[in-house]
Amino acid sequence: MGSPQRPPLAHVFRGTFVHSSRSAPMEILHEHLLGVDDSGTIVFLEQSDQQEQLAKKWGFKTSDIRELSNYEFFMPGMVDTHIHAPQYSFTGTRVDLPLLQWLTTYTFPTEAKYKDSDFAEEVYTRVVRRTLKNGTTTACYFATIYTDTSLLLAEILDKFGQRAFVGKVCMDVNDSMPQYKEITADSVRETERFVKELLEKKYPRVQPIITPRFGPSCTEDLLHALGNLAQAHDLHVQSHISENEEEIKVVENMFPAYQNYTELYDKNKLLTSKTVMAHACHLSEEELKLFSLRGAAISHCPSSNFSLCSGILNVQMVLKHDVKLGLGTALGLDDVIGNFEVGKEFDALLINTKASDSPFDLFSADNFEDTVQKFLYLGDDRNISEVYVAGKQVVPFSSSV
Amino acid sequence: MGSPQRPPLAHVFRGTFVHSSRSAPMEILHEHLLGVDDSGTIVFLEQSDQQEQLAKKWGFKTSDIRELSNYEFFMPGMVDTHIHAPQYSFTGTRVDLPLLQWLTTYTFPTEAKYKDSDFAEEVYTRVVRRTLKNGTTTACYFATIYTDTSLLLAEILDKFGQRAFVGKVCMDVNDSMPQYKEITADSVRETERFVKELLEKKYPRVQPIITPRFGPSCTEDLLHALGNLAQAHDLHVQSHISENEEEIKVVENMFPAYQNYTELYDKNKLLTSKTVMAHACHLSEEELKLFSLRGAAISHCPSSNFSLCSGILNVQMVLKHDVKLGLGTALGLDDVIGNFEVGKEFDALLINTKASDSPFDLFSADNFEDTVQKFLYLGDDRNISEVYVAGKQVVPFSSSV
Repeated sequence: MGSPQRPPLAHVFRGTFVHSSRSAPMEILHEHLLGVDDSGTIVFLEQSDQQEQLAKKWGFKTSDIRELSNYEFFMPGMVDTHIHAPQYSFTGTRVDLPLLQWLTTYTFPTEAKYKDSDFAEEVYTRVVRRTLKNGTTTACYFATIYTDTSLLLAEILDKFGQRAFVGKVCMDVNDSMPQYKEITADSVRETERFVKELLEKKYPRVQPIITPRFGPSCTEDLLHALGNLAQAHDLHVQSHISENEEEIKVVENMFPAYQNYTELYDKNKLLTSKTVMAHACHLSEEELKLFSLRGAAISHCPSSNFSLCSGILNVQMVLKHDVKLGLGTALGLDDVIGNFEVGKEFDALLINTKASDSPFDLFSADNFEDTVQKFLYLGDDRNISEVYVAGKQVVPFSSSV
Repeated sequence: MGSPQRPPLAHVFRGTFVHSSRSAPMEILHEHLLGVDDSGTIVFLEQSDQQEQLAKKWGFKTSDIRELSNYEFFMPGMVDTHIHAPQYSFTGTRVDLPLLQWLTTYTFPTEAKYKDSDFAEEVYTRVVRRTLKNGTTTACYFATIYTDTSLLLAEILDKFGQRAFVGKVCMDVNDSMPQYKEITADSVRETERFVKELLEKKYPRVQPIITPRFGPSCTEDLLHALGNLAQAHDLHVQSHISENEEEIKVVENMFPAYQNYTELYDKNKLLTSKTVMAHACHLSEEELKLFSLRGAAISHCPSSNFSLCSGILNVQMVLKHDVKLGLGTALGLDDVIGNFEVGKEFDALLINTKASDSPFDLFSADNFEDTVQKFLYLGDDRNISEVYVAGKQVVPFSSSV
């Protein structure tokens, strides 16, 4: 005791840490020391007056400590529970059609281009860089129906160090653009290959996720096979549900034997405690109860819902039914990331509230909480000076990526 | 003819211009030449093949032409029809209370600090710099009840070159914080002084606007006097109306002799074709008809309305009643600014879609309209490389301000 046998710590930071804890939705810890070990795990978070004891126990010197300035703080990395990597190429454009017409006119033709690995590499690299730069340390991605470029996305994610789920999209129904769909058996076989090859890579923080596109794009056979696959390998599942009313009608007509959209997924073993369903604007109370019973989560996408006039999610109703909503815990990662508790991995953003060209102004009357709020409401990537995933600094980008 | 007797032009730009015109909500004019005279007025906007004739007529040389690159374009400057300059100090914070409690808890105590001219100068300078940098070439400001620092705001606006209306706020009712209100007679007299002194400055593009805060802050006597003042000097008027339901109930109780909130302003001569009313979330159809009849405008503030849970403006209903809504024409400036028509003043933003550290990515599949949309939805001040008001470059800031 006293003379450490452990490997040296990867980081010791001293300064202000802002996160959510069991005791408070926003906890501001000034004058604290946080240590991260070689595996990326937080090993201590204590008041700075404990420095001497901590230094002895963990074997670090004062010169090993990185001191934050008083206008900097660490906050947990952000989690994006629903992002379509291939659609990044047209983000910010083409929001003039409702969902089903938007898919046919813009999305399917764009996604079809990702058979080309050069095109896929360009866009996938940019979306990973952009989201990391904006502070997204974990993301749950839809790719496309193409297995090889979906594996390429996983490779890029591993290279840049973003924590992620990646789904090869499955769809065997597409009357509007028959060249962008799969034969049922191929979709299942390719998903098996995708899962197998991705797991064989042993990327530490990139995992496969079973990804039927949504009800209107899938036969019952496909959903059934994907549910079995998810169950057999204990995999996460993602899809969309009840995003817009026209979509719901299509599902009712395609699957008259099911009571509702949620039951379609549930009876095919796709509604589990490892499921994230995007949108869910129009679920009935009965469906929300089933979500709650299964422990399935909803990814809320208000910007998308407003842009495509899809509908509005009644968040209070979702919470009333105790359905998991939104951020980190949606993904079932709440024992790994989400705050700075000892034992969790250090996914973090170093925020500089006085960054050069910062998009907001601070005044002498601002207390620290005001400063944090100004960053949250008015700040942007200019204030995010460093990003860490599992203790590894991933922004600024290394010269090797 | 041919040999120009006119003074030399201030600017000749050649490149792409994007604006709204009578013929199209978004018109993209590639390969055009735009000339601005010494007074800041656009004197021509023609296809580049007219260069020789234009050069002869207006007396400019090829070397006088500023060539935009093919990833730059000019668009009209942005117009903010409702902004509270003193509240800038806490923008991005304190959005946890509904309107009336928010006013009492945060807003009135903050506004009371603007009696101090040092504090006012700091915040007012920053709000003008920040809004200009973000592309706001015209803004309609509420200041506070203090005449001298309201005049200081006007002085700062003139110095930085932003086109603006400035209102000294009038309020003679404030039970929640009696030290932040005026005696009725003082409020009227100080408003007269504010208008007189501001007009005497002869700032070319900064004008006074009559500014009763809103129904709950004013006696009928004050509203009556301010309406007469607006009429006597033919001045613009701004206030708030029907922002939240509690506010409406207060107005009903305070002014039982009036049919509704709109009639309160109307009968006191404050609802004219030069009036801009902010929020208006809960107006009845009858009230919208009166707005339409008087030619009064509504300033729609959706972010504020969501932040304070005030309500949602039914924009389609407003447009159905042919009420002026939102941007430039709200302010009755549509013959002066708003697009690049010949005869209007050149209020413009030079957009660089490939700015260093631009917040969005462009791909080879993006056409020019996609690029414009990406700027509008994803861009920020990093893409606004220059800002012009009436032909004068105001961003980057001159070293003299």
